[in-house]
Amino acid sequence: MTSREPRPGKSERRTDALSKERIVEAAIEILDAEGESGLTFRALAARLSTGSGAIYHHVANKNDLLTAATDEIVERVLSGVARYGQPREVIRVVALGMFDAIDVHPWVGTHLTSEPRQLALPQVLEGLGGPLRALGVPDHAQFDCASALLNYVLGVGGQNAAHARVHAGVGDRATFLASIVARWTQLDPERYPFVHKMATRLREHDDREQFLAGIDLILAGIESVSRTGETAVLPDP
Amino acid sequence: MTSREPRPGKSERRTDALSKERIVEAAIEILDAEGESGLTFRALAARLSTGSGAIYHHVANKNDLLTAATDEIVERVLSGVARYGQPREVIRVVALGMFDAIDVHPWVGTHLTSEPRQLALPQVLEGLGGPLRALGVPDHAQFDCASALLNYVLGVGGQNAAHARVHAGVGDRATFLASIVARWTQLDPERYPFVHKMATRLREHDDREQFLAGIDLILAGIESVSRTGETAVLPDP
Repeated sequence: MTSREPRPGKSERRTDALSKERIVEAAIEILDAEGESGLTFRALAARLSTGSGAIYHHVANKNDLLTAATDEIVERVLSGVARYGQPREVIRVVALGMFDAIDVHPWVGTHLTSEPRQLALPQVLEGLGGPLRALGVPDHAQFDCASALLNYVLGVGGQNAAHARVHAGVGDRATFLASIVARWTQLDPERYPFVHKMATRLREHDDREQFLAGIDLILAGIESVSRTGETAVLPDP
Repeated sequence: MTSREPRPGKSERRTDALSKERIVEAAIEILDAEGESGLTFRALAARLSTGSGAIYHHVANKNDLLTAATDEIVERVLSGVARYGQPREVIRVVALGMFDAIDVHPWVGTHLTSEPRQLALPQVLEGLGGPLRALGVPDHAQFDCASALLNYVLGVGGQNAAHARVHAGVGDRATFLASIVARWTQLDPERYPFVHKMATRLREHDDREQFLAGIDLILAGIESVSRTGETAVLPDP
């Protein structure tokens, strides 16, 4: 209902209308455009046409702001997940949703791992680990399974986002991959037979598909552990 | 045979004795102590009691230096791996060796992913992917399996190292984990039943053990894919 366009008016009116929601929205825009270093109270005040004091009324410091922005992005990902689906499918959707969110908002990955006390991390853990019981994973194996999924999602997602930023100026992806393949195929095929075999696949690969292939392998491992688990398993109906 | 202790003498003698090996050794020491930002030709020249010109004779720029240092660390990890072991065990040893190396030398993880054209990355890929055929993984599934392992090792290893640096000044690990558990157990148990169940395990967990638990799940997934693979499988003798 409310427009995000800046409107002319008295600065008091703007301060009155300043909600935490609007501040977080503006913080997300700055973080996406300029990264963590660009997020200052000054930049935020300029974008919201208000003073820093009005913002401090809602958030105490930059860390609180990053936490609120991270919570907001994770909330968006998880609110889109249907909770009634097959447990395997719920895990895949949460994992891929987080991968995409970290790809678009790289600072989310950084802040999730650097501030594990915020709400967003246990939310992601619940999303990935909650379905494990329905998958038939015995109690004693659930921590290992959930931690493997969470570490993979945050580690591989974070690395993918960092990689995209480092190579943002390198030219197009196809040329870059071709240059890697060219180097790899110059290696001694006797010492690097596997690398030679994989070089063609490397040129064609899609990072998102490979991310999901890894999730599927972990899920296959989880299902295999569940079948061979020593503890009696009573899957959810 | 040669001592690494600085010896008194003419600067010409030191320049003569300057090998790429000694330069890389000094670069590793600087990178470990001060990180990538501390590695300058000036700092390196001071540590080696020589001039920048003598160093430029052996390495062209900082990126070359980082690549040579990364290659050296990865070479040390891989040279310690017995190549005649069970394929599953070889993969575990390579993965854990890389995790430990990135933990001690965090810059290795960063440089491996930011400069995939260097030798070290295909070396790690060969170490993780080479044993897959002997594990019975069909040809068409080998790229997915190797890429899952490589992404997990670099992603989770890199995240672990970054995490250790962020929390280096936070006090002891037990207190930090206890503070996370305290927050998590305050969450609504109806909405976060899995997080509540895992809180105790979180307090006791060991990052290295959890890393390896994830590798074992991926390996279990790989073995399950191999058993159900549509392609005929002829495992190595």
